[in-house]
Amino acid sequence: MLNPVTDAFEAQLRAMLPAAAFKDDSAPYLTEPRGRWAGQGLVIAPGTTEDVAAVVKACADARIGIVPYSGGTGLVGGQLLQDGPAPVVLSLERMNRIRDIYPSENVLVCDAGVILADVQKAAEGVGRLFPLSLASEGSARIGGLLSTNAGGVNVLRYGNARAQCLGLEVVRPDGTIWHGLTRLRKDNTGYDLRNLMIGAEGTLGIITGAALKLAPRPVGVGAAMMAVPSPAAALDLLAMAGERIGDGISAFEIMHRQGFDFLAEVGPEVKQPFDNIPEWCVLIDVGLPAGLPPEAALEGLFEAAFEAELVTDGVIAQSHAQRDAFWHIRESIPEANRRIGSVSSHDISVPLSAIPEFIQRGKQALAEVGAFRINCFGHLGDGNLHYNIFPMPGRTRADYEAERPRVKEVVHDMVHAMDGSVSAEHGIGRLKVDDLEHYGDPVKLSMLRAIKDALDPLGIMNPGAVLRQV
Amino acid sequence: MLNPVTDAFEAQLRAMLPAAAFKDDSAPYLTEPRGRWAGQGLVIAPGTTEDVAAVVKACADARIGIVPYSGGTGLVGGQLLQDGPAPVVLSLERMNRIRDIYPSENVLVCDAGVILADVQKAAEGVGRLFPLSLASEGSARIGGLLSTNAGGVNVLRYGNARAQCLGLEVVRPDGTIWHGLTRLRKDNTGYDLRNLMIGAEGTLGIITGAALKLAPRPVGVGAAMMAVPSPAAALDLLAMAGERIGDGISAFEIMHRQGFDFLAEVGPEVKQPFDNIPEWCVLIDVGLPAGLPPEAALEGLFEAAFEAELVTDGVIAQSHAQRDAFWHIRESIPEANRRIGSVSSHDISVPLSAIPEFIQRGKQALAEVGAFRINCFGHLGDGNLHYNIFPMPGRTRADYEAERPRVKEVVHDMVHAMDGSVSAEHGIGRLKVDDLEHYGDPVKLSMLRAIKDALDPLGIMNPGAVLRQV
Repeated sequence: MLNPVTDAFEAQLRAMLPAAAFKDDSAPYLTEPRGRWAGQGLVIAPGTTEDVAAVVKACADARIGIVPYSGGTGLVGGQLLQDGPAPVVLSLERMNRIRDIYPSENVLVCDAGVILADVQKAAEGVGRLFPLSLASEGSARIGGLLSTNAGGVNVLRYGNARAQCLGLEVVRPDGTIWHGLTRLRKDNTGYDLRNLMIGAEGTLGIITGAALKLAPRPVGVGAAMMAVPSPAAALDLLAMAGERIGDGISAFEIMHRQGFDFLAEVGPEVKQPFDNIPEWCVLIDVGLPAGLPPEAALEGLFEAAFEAELVTDGVIAQSHAQRDAFWHIRESIPEANRRIGSVSSHDISVPLSAIPEFIQRGKQALAEVGAFRINCFGHLGDGNLHYNIFPMPGRTRADYEAERPRVKEVVHDMVHAMDGSVSAEHGIGRLKVDDLEHYGDPVKLSMLRAIKDALDPLGIMNPGAVLRQV
Repeated sequence: MLNPVTDAFEAQLRAMLPAAAFKDDSAPYLTEPRGRWAGQGLVIAPGTTEDVAAVVKACADARIGIVPYSGGTGLVGGQLLQDGPAPVVLSLERMNRIRDIYPSENVLVCDAGVILADVQKAAEGVGRLFPLSLASEGSARIGGLLSTNAGGVNVLRYGNARAQCLGLEVVRPDGTIWHGLTRLRKDNTGYDLRNLMIGAEGTLGIITGAALKLAPRPVGVGAAMMAVPSPAAALDLLAMAGERIGDGISAFEIMHRQGFDFLAEVGPEVKQPFDNIPEWCVLIDVGLPAGLPPEAALEGLFEAAFEAELVTDGVIAQSHAQRDAFWHIRESIPEANRRIGSVSSHDISVPLSAIPEFIQRGKQALAEVGAFRINCFGHLGDGNLHYNIFPMPGRTRADYEAERPRVKEVVHDMVHAMDGSVSAEHGIGRLKVDDLEHYGDPVKLSMLRAIKDALDPLGIMNPGAVLRQV
């Protein structure tokens, strides 16, 4: 059983840390982006790894829980503890230094509190690319992105956050520091602690620094929107694109017409790419080496795909501005979704070839629950769909309180039956602990529990996230 | 403390398993490829995952150690237990089925006992590539390759074995089966058990099946040998190649003239690519998309590099046969090394930009120990060098027994001081347990131990490998 933060404990921390580590206003740290949950606790922002270690050691001695806080953009409540003894909320915002850049190695070493967009800019400054890219990149911080193994739009080519990290510095739950900040590409000396910490959502320790992998910047970039007759055709197009352009495909996103209808209904303003919006279309992004112009590669793909009846229409970006416009459409869909207000949102993945069946069965199964609008879009190349269920026109989210649990159950049962995941990129946090218990393989669950107990025997690290507090 | 296999235990297993699971001749399983160590124990080859689980359960009940045995090609003694109570040696050779191939998903699911070359062939059969490639691919099996996180020549582009696996089926040390054989590209539901098992060298469980990631086959492949004035120039050439050709660079291998001299001295016969063998040269391999001929890309690179004084000579393969000939040279070097007989061999990695300094300092430091010939070659793109020390002409390995420990110490101390790894791709096995203890961060070591104790509390899985048996 953990203890709550007390005035005496706060005084102890104030004696240890500089005044800058304490916040006048803790409210922003205790609210969730969509306002769904409220947190509690004492917010602390240490400025160094050693100070993080000292706070963790003090918490371990006093058996006080710690909730690591990064950019605060998570959608599953991993950064907020609503109930139980008040914890220390440990923000890494003051640890925001880029420590070193090694352009010849394609490596950047930074504090965990650096904002993603700042890493992207620093990489660009030395002619390199940090490919992790997602909607919240202006506020999400590296520590949280790694702790949740963030995904985004470039996973198809560059992998998720896990694939873009070479080394970590971690404060363990006993306050010791693991100096694993290696820049090595290969090191087979013992178990893979790095990947264990990545995606652990702060329940096994606090990531305080990272050595990140940069990539060469592609010589030419381009994009196309192509209308496809069906999700199955989109998958065949993906395979054809791989055969022709290989690793050069950076992103392959699918969008249903519903997203365009939402944009027309509630904004934001976007220029529609097609005269007649097709039921399904894909956004293909490429980055290619010297000697291979992206427009030519995309035209070649379009012609071969048209021949094979995999596409019915297409627009190839003729400028960077047009490419940006395509991406603006894709990135505006989540905002349109927020304005409409979903009954239930799902971040799911299934094996790639099961996607057409999933979309078909989902439509049928939800029709049995009630009348909804479904906006299905996302990272087709990764088998990862954002599968969101909306009210019919003229009604609101609040009208569907009764149906929501059943909608969620229908979608998750279907995903599970198809060997999919009910959290493809958002993680478990506190929102999906029940789902993990319900759908997770019991053998897997017992291993997760054994690892948690071994590495955080007092249970102070992000209590109740990923695994239920016992 | 573990118990040895007894006649009664063997009888118990014979009652459980078909006769095919028992070997008439266990000698091949109890000797190491170079004949350096001898193993012991009862060799069993179960034919199914359920039979593996039953054997493990029986061993757990009787507290008998298990040494998983895959292709037997490991170089660090992970597949052999010399001392202590006789274990069960568990071979997966009878589990050699490719279970399913999903070309549209770029996924292949197989038993862990399948030989690497058979996976490569099966992938080729559906127009795909399984990029893991190394000298022992004709006998190494998938389970061992994953358990040691094998590397090889394509790591630069495709990553090591870890990066090529989506899911695992694992028999845990208590005989339960973890069904983690997912084909999902994204699944953020709990800690990364897959990567924990990969590289654990059979000490946390036995991998019995794997879902492997295939890649599209590049449309055009090519290779070039280029003479470089120095290792530093080779690194600059690597960066330039990345900027021009990006992901299209599949391999970037460095070779010292010593390797060519060994080939001339003891064979195998190869056709030398240069009239005058340079001190250093690189082998660059590319795989490119449609529309970009490899010869043109390599010529463009060579011209730019010549202009920048990064290369002094070069030969671009004009045919598949010539490309194969280049690779034959590279792949013949280890055989020439074996014929010469090394004083001491090292599989090391350092941060990429430290390589020139490592090579320079190594030469000086070894000169203080004695007179040697150094053959330094390997995966420059990964910062991974095979750094092998040989007798002077006319002398043999046996003449250097006295110097060997000091040579090893000098090399490993230097690697450690440069933030490198003393086992870049071969693993720890039993040979390098002392090194891990000596050079490993104590905080890291305590985490390794905690995980081992949590997941294998009886200590029956590959006892004494990676971590000392306590």
